[in-house]
Amino acid sequence: MKTQVELVATGSELLSGRIVNRHAQVLGEALLPLGLTLSRETSVPDDIQAIADAVRMALQRVDVVLVSGGLGATTDDVTREAVAELLGRRIVKDEASLSGLREKYKIFGRELSPISERQILVVEGSVVLPNPVGMAPGQRIESGGKVLFILPGPPREFNAVLSTHVLPWLQEAFRGALSVTQKILMVCGVGESDLAAQLEMEGFPPPGLDVAYCASGGRVEVRLTATSDRQAVIDQASEVVRRVLGRHIFAEDRLTMEEVVGRLLLERRSTLATAESCTGGGIGQRITSVSGSSAYYMGGIIAYDNRVKISQLGVPETELAAQGAVSKEVAASMAQGVRQRLGADYGLSITGVAGPTGGTDEKPVGLVWMAVADAAGTVTSSRRFPGDRDWIRESSTLFALDLLRRRILGTV
Amino acid sequence: MKTQVELVATGSELLSGRIVNRHAQVLGEALLPLGLTLSRETSVPDDIQAIADAVRMALQRVDVVLVSGGLGATTDDVTREAVAELLGRRIVKDEASLSGLREKYKIFGRELSPISERQILVVEGSVVLPNPVGMAPGQRIESGGKVLFILPGPPREFNAVLSTHVLPWLQEAFRGALSVTQKILMVCGVGESDLAAQLEMEGFPPPGLDVAYCASGGRVEVRLTATSDRQAVIDQASEVVRRVLGRHIFAEDRLTMEEVVGRLLLERRSTLATAESCTGGGIGQRITSVSGSSAYYMGGIIAYDNRVKISQLGVPETELAAQGAVSKEVAASMAQGVRQRLGADYGLSITGVAGPTGGTDEKPVGLVWMAVADAAGTVTSSRRFPGDRDWIRESSTLFALDLLRRRILGTV
Repeated sequence: MKTQVELVATGSELLSGRIVNRHAQVLGEALLPLGLTLSRETSVPDDIQAIADAVRMALQRVDVVLVSGGLGATTDDVTREAVAELLGRRIVKDEASLSGLREKYKIFGRELSPISERQILVVEGSVVLPNPVGMAPGQRIESGGKVLFILPGPPREFNAVLSTHVLPWLQEAFRGALSVTQKILMVCGVGESDLAAQLEMEGFPPPGLDVAYCASGGRVEVRLTATSDRQAVIDQASEVVRRVLGRHIFAEDRLTMEEVVGRLLLERRSTLATAESCTGGGIGQRITSVSGSSAYYMGGIIAYDNRVKISQLGVPETELAAQGAVSKEVAASMAQGVRQRLGADYGLSITGVAGPTGGTDEKPVGLVWMAVADAAGTVTSSRRFPGDRDWIRESSTLFALDLLRRRILGTV
Repeated sequence: MKTQVELVATGSELLSGRIVNRHAQVLGEALLPLGLTLSRETSVPDDIQAIADAVRMALQRVDVVLVSGGLGATTDDVTREAVAELLGRRIVKDEASLSGLREKYKIFGRELSPISERQILVVEGSVVLPNPVGMAPGQRIESGGKVLFILPGPPREFNAVLSTHVLPWLQEAFRGALSVTQKILMVCGVGESDLAAQLEMEGFPPPGLDVAYCASGGRVEVRLTATSDRQAVIDQASEVVRRVLGRHIFAEDRLTMEEVVGRLLLERRSTLATAESCTGGGIGQRITSVSGSSAYYMGGIIAYDNRVKISQLGVPETELAAQGAVSKEVAASMAQGVRQRLGADYGLSITGVAGPTGGTDEKPVGLVWMAVADAAGTVTSSRRFPGDRDWIRESSTLFALDLLRRRILGTV
């Protein structure tokens, strides 16, 4: 059994629809390489009894508990009180954090109010963990052979205190933990259950191997996990996945499609321009989410209105009239147009019916045409995506980038 | 005490960093208008004992428990087994779902395998809840005066089964619940703790009112909640918020900034074009996330490379050389250029240093210039955003849209 950690996320906003709780995802991913497992996450409202109850039960099950949120300056922030009450300790002011807080307020030209000063209150006996990106510090509290970490709730601050203080401490404390080895294969173009069925027919999972599938935004991540002494099992299983899924594998690591495409362009010193209709800038947004993308991304034209397709991309008016905006021909003209006008090596285009309105029998909601133009010519591809507007836009963005990837690699 | 509901989310991928669990957010939001509260969410791995344990404890605390995930076709899907074991029931095949499953596979041109057929297994005695957008149906199980819902894990399917079957049932069952009234005010341009401090100085929260602040992507949502018999308390408090925050309030409802801007443009029959550098298409992506945006959004130019700013937006080369790409002058030229070239009423531009590299003493990471051009002239605005690349891009997108909003309203 691997060493287990629990997370108690506090905050009424997590349960009332106001916010999505991302801490479990961040923490789970960070613990894995340390040989630790996030075994449970519990979200409770800003209520002293609910928080104290959840923390007490977590401490009964495991030795390390992280508590997030409720360290702010407002009256609904009661995590300190809940933990202090549970452990029978007092709440004290951390003078060392006060000067740092004053300094931070000064940089952004704000005045430090008495209310804001509440943020530097801590549970007595705790080790204070300075917050590199926010106001309220984290805390480490040891009690009865167990360790309790309290972290600020805002994701940036949670992540910063986690990586600066919590993970290094855990790594040191659990040096002897049996670590696990992972192999990740990223797949585009095969659905999760089809993929699972294909691999089960090949005898998956083999003994000693844990296989997990995770679908998100049109791609599926296949994750093979085994204890570090079973590298051979991972290698053999990876070979099976490669044989079965072939060209659908776009990365053998936890990379996004935009990172993969960015690396390919960088290696070849090639440049890219985009022409988007239904995704409205989403492809450009994803490409530029990668730091350093200015080395290969020139920019693009968002041709949402047909007049922009004509004036800024040179799509022939007759073609739009004859074939419609969502067509093989218009996708090709858009890719060629943006490549030529922006002076890029590759032009990538997308045009589709994102819905919920605008679909016809011939061109239903979800129908998307994509094209890549380069010096050698133009390739096009179409697909009908299931789902709602957001889903169609997100998954078609992925498929368009995958078409570009395969074109760069010369397989289409 | 309001009637409470708990959620048990199953899936190792929720705890191993593979995926962000959004079910609590969706469910919490949906329960509120019914007078119900999501009082706790627990995430557990795909493990029969862990699932059974979490469901058993939830059933001890509340009368209604939702369980999500683990209904798929793969070997790690064990939620049915866990619930069946907990309740001492068998697992049976739901023949009615089988024909629907065959039909769905046919539409998308896929073959139904014996493995995929596992998806229609249900706990004996359950009421089967057909899944309108996926394969595995949901289930409603009554046992010992308690109600247990099992829903598929993929967000689209969870949401569909929730709204089609679970919410209508709850509404009927809890018709007598004392409902709550809410007032939501969306704020841009004031930080969460400053905002809270300002309102606390005005005596917030008044008796009988629950005030929650939720910051996300640069905006803060102020939510005032009271039982339905206290409408006057909500109205008075709303007036205080309006007086204190004034022009920083961009909506008095749960609207996104892009929805607010879209409505303003639609009302005025005005059109918009965008010119983006640091956000790389993110503004266009957000504008077009609103269905119907084609009525006012022409499109845009993603001018990531300076050559594109010159060739596609007409930014003078001398201006780029003298002022740099991140400057008031270039932002203004970009807005004017895109307005003129795309023939729109408003041109909105953004140019900034998203980081992590590229910052200087004079133009640090986080510095962003924005501009709006219209028939009356051009307004510019700049701000230094704290945080990492993603955060700078996301919050600057919001502020740019807010500048446009204020320009349309004539307040800048």
